[in-house]
Amino acid sequence: MNVSEVFSIDGEVRDSELDLQGIVNNSNYFIFMAHARHKHLKALGIDFAKTHEEGHDLVLAEATIKYRTPLKSGDEYAVTSKIVPQGKIRVIMEQEVIRKSDKKVCAIGIFTVTSISTKTLRPEFPENLKLLLGI
Amino acid sequence: MNVSEVFSIDGEVRDSELDLQGIVNNSNYFIFMAHARHKHLKALGIDFAKTHEEGHDLVLAEATIKYRTPLKSGDEYAVTSKIVPQGKIRVIMEQEVIRKSDKKVCAIGIFTVTSISTKTLRPEFPENLKLLLGI
Amino acid sequence: MNVSEVFSIDGEVRDSELDLQGIVNNSNYFIFMAHARHKHLKALGIDFAKTHEEGHDLVLAEATIKYRTPLKSGDEYAVTSKIVPQGKIRVIMEQEVIRKSDKKVCAIGIFTVTSISTKTLRPEFPENLKLLLGI
Amino acid sequence: MNVSEVFSIDGEVRDSELDLQGIVNNSNYFIFMAHARHKHLKALGIDFAKTHEEGHDLVLAEATIKYRTPLKSGDEYAVTSKIVPQGKIRVIMEQEVIRKSDKKVCAIGIFTVTSISTKTLRPEFPENLKLLLGI
Repeated sequence: MNVSEVFSIDGEVRDSELDLQGIVNNSNYFIFMAHARHKHLKALGIDFAKTHEEGHDLVLAEATIKYRTPLKSGDEYAVTSKIVPQGKIRVIMEQEVIRKSDKKVCAIGIFTVTSISTKTLRPEFPENLKLLLGI
Repeated sequence: MNVSEVFSIDGEVRDSELDLQGIVNNSNYFIFMAHARHKHLKALGIDFAKTHEEGHDLVLAEATIKYRTPLKSGDEYAVTSKIVPQGKIRVIMEQEVIRKSDKKVCAIGIFTVTSISTKTLRPEFPENLKLLLGI
Repeated sequence: MNVSEVFSIDGEVRDSELDLQGIVNNSNYFIFMAHARHKHLKALGIDFAKTHEEGHDLVLAEATIKYRTPLKSGDEYAVTSKIVPQGKIRVIMEQEVIRKSDKKVCAIGIFTVTSISTKTLRPEFPENLKLLLGI
Repeated sequence: MNVSEVFSIDGEVRDSELDLQGIVNNSNYFIFMAHARHKHLKALGIDFAKTHEEGHDLVLAEATIKYRTPLKSGDEYAVTSKIVPQGKIRVIMEQEVIRKSDKKVCAIGIFTVTSISTKTLRPEFPENLKLLLGI
């Protein structure tokens, strides 16, 4: 796939993700979106685990989630992911969690991803990510 | 489906489920199996959330997991679930987590499920579960 | 305590919260901060579980976390929480996760909290929260 | 401390650990007990993260939890941990989660811990653990 395409995965709510309000606990949208980001990058040839082994840790510099409609028990959802390059050492990933039954946007996420060299502990993108972004 | 049939769902490892050993943290097999049990019961007409609203809480009395082979980043797996009725107030659910790539059994689970009335706080199966089990 | 005081709790990293990079997974800062917010509100007389039972669900409208320094195995931390009233139906809670050993700020959180009536499903603060905020 | 002493840590329920039944989700007892085991071993000089770096992965071969009384929002608890040596390559750890308010046992855990060499991928205890157990 192309780096500018919107990527998407499907998921469904696990009851263990609900809290006593009967809705998916806020922290889990974070996890759903992280999973979609990792799958998105992997589809583009950037593997989170392999990148770590090869000396670069992909990490978040900042995360924002806007909550719109809560997911409940049994809900199926899609999680989208879109890459917006941001200079030499940052990438923005824009995401949505969308309820399948009625296409309602449940949550919007904006994530600033960077990469730290495990040797120098300084910000540094791995070569394959630079290549991908054309930087 | 029939109550004696083996039920199965598919899943894939989320990187957030790995620990510093690079393998899926033990607690997550527990969550994978719980999700399969809930989906299994739902396929048989027993909905976890609805059952709670209607006055019965399905709960575990005991859980055993035997760990065989660890799942890693990117692994896809199946989780099976089989119901073994056990008298008037308990059901055993036998489960396996199987790695898709080579059919290796990663974990075996044995769960004793019971049900508590939210009114009396005493063990009591909901009517639809009694009907299902023929008790 | 007074509504304008900074609240703080202590915690320590659980190894199950680490990921394969050997650092606390991003989603867990979210959970640490949620725990501090709930304890903060409870210290002010607003109990999350009781508020739900009484017909109001405290929920997040928006969450932002800025990641500064990763927590690792064995680290002890403090989580602060500060309430910034924001009109009639929103409260901002500003938070920090601070590593105990060297007082480094590991993460900064800004959370917009609102409340939904479980009857009308519309935004509405419970009476005790209105009283607390003087609105 | 001595290897035969009972170790204990304190904790308190995070609201994010509750499920829609308003009780701590079963999987979290697993996490509470894992945290106590890791702290127990660390108090005896066996550090989970360091042991991994030095070439041995402490892993579970089997886990059993018996559920007695559910923890709820606001509950404080103790988690105990007791080591029972079991031959050359296994250690049993017996645990309890005890509600502080009334000393009720909420859950009983029995965990079979082993260790895998990250080089040979075969069961092998690290030297400091052998020394500790006198084997």
